Amino acid sequence: MEKLTLHEYAPSGNCYKIRLVASHLGVTLGRRHYDILNGETRTPDFLRTVNGNGRIPVLQIGDRYLPESGAACFYLAEGSSLIPDDRFDRADMLRWMNFEQYNHEPNVATLRFWLAFIGEGGLSDFQKAQLPGKRAAGDAALDLMERHLADRAFFVADRFTLADVALFAYTHVADEGGFDLASRPAIRTWIDRISALPGHIPIDA
Amino acid sequence: MEKLTLHEYAPSGNCYKIRLVASHLGVTLGRRHYDILNGETRTPDFLRTVNGNGRIPVLQIGDRYLPESGAACFYLAEGSSLIPDDRFDRADMLRWMNFEQYNHEPNVATLRFWLAFIGEGGLSDFQKAQLPGKRAAGDAALDLMERHLADRAFFVADRFTLADVALFAYTHVADEGGFDLASRPAIRTWIDRISALPGHIPIDA
Repeated sequence: MEKLTLHEYAPSGNCYKIRLVASHLGVTLGRRHYDILNGETRTPDFLRTVNGNGRIPVLQIGDRYLPESGAACFYLAEGSSLIPDDRFDRADMLRWMNFEQYNHEPNVATLRFWLAFIGEGGLSDFQKAQLPGKRAAGDAALDLMERHLADRAFFVADRFTLADVALFAYTHVADEGGFDLASRPAIRTWIDRISALPGHIPIDA
Repeated sequence: MEKLTLHEYAPSGNCYKIRLVASHLGVTLGRRHYDILNGETRTPDFLRTVNGNGRIPVLQIGDRYLPESGAACFYLAEGSSLIPDDRFDRADMLRWMNFEQYNHEPNVATLRFWLAFIGEGGLSDFQKAQLPGKRAAGDAALDLMERHLADRAFFVADRFTLADVALFAYTHVADEGGFDLASRPAIRTWIDRISALPGHIPIDA
C-alpha cells in the first residue's frame, strides 16, 4: 500500500474513526495535526492541496487526498472483515454510517465540540438557539441506537464492522456533550464490547 | 433479485436518486407513497416496520428494509459501472456522496423544501433565523462543485457514477430553493450532460 498520512485534529471523533480502523487492520498512519480552532484547515494552501471543503479528516494516499471519514474508513477496510461480504449487510453498514453523519454527528458531536471544546460562554446567540434542537435530535439518535442494540451485539451482520466504528467514535464520548448514557444500558454494553476488542485504541492514543 | 419496493415521497431528491439509479440499471421498483407533510412516516407502524428513524426513502428488498438513499443506491448499483472498479475511485465516490449528505443536502435541499414546499410564510422564527446560514453553506457547496467540475466531465473516474447521481438530485432543482446556477456554468453543463444520458429520467417521472 502507498504511504498513508492522516491530516487531522486529534480530538475529532471523525479523525479517531480512521485511526481506529487502521489499528484494527494493523496499518501504520503518518499523522499531521491542524489546529481547527485557529483556522488551519481554511488556509489557501490547505484548500488548494488537501481539501477544498476546508475540513479534516483527510486521508492522504501517496499523492492523492481522500476527504470524509466514511470514505477513508471504507478505503482502508476493503477486503477485511470490517466490511461484510453479504450485499445487503454491506449496504446496511453504509446505512448506519450515513445515519451517523446525518442524524447523529451534527447533534452529538456538535454539542460535544460546543460545550466541551468552546464552552457555553463562548457560543454565539445563534448557536445557543440551536442547543435545544440539537439536544432533542441527538437524544433521538441515541434512542434509535439503544433500541437497535437491545437484541444485537453489533450494528450489522452480528459482527464488528465500520458501522460500529462510525457510531462508536462520538457515542462513547457523548457525555462530554451532556448526553446521558446511564439510561441507555444497551449502548453502554456495546461500548464495553467494542473497547475490549483486540486492536482497539482509545481516542487519545 | 428479490422484489424491490421504494417507500418514498416522490418530490424528495433523496427518493429520486434511487429511482434514477434503478432506471439506469433497467431495474423495476414498486413505489409506495407517504405524505411527509402529514406525518405518514412517523406513525407507530412505519417506525416499527419500515424505518425507526421515521424517514424516507427506504428501499424494501423482499421483507428487509434499507433506509438511507446512499445505502440503497449502493445496494442497487453493486457490480455495475455506476460504482468504479478502482479502490481509490470507489472511496472517492463515497467521499462525494458523504459530502452531499453533510454539506449540500441539509442546505440546498432544505431551502428548497422550506421555500418551495412549505413557503416562507409558513416557516417558524427559528427556521427563518437559519436561512442566512443555510444560504451561505449551500452556496459554498455549489461553489466547491463548480470548481471541481471546471475541468472534469463527471465527479469521479471520468465517468457517470453514484457520486453524480447523489449530487444531481438536488442540484438540478437548486433554483427552487433560490440558488443561482446562472453564475455556475460548469454545473449547468454537467446537468445537461447527466440529463442527456441514456436511461435518464426526470424527478417527476
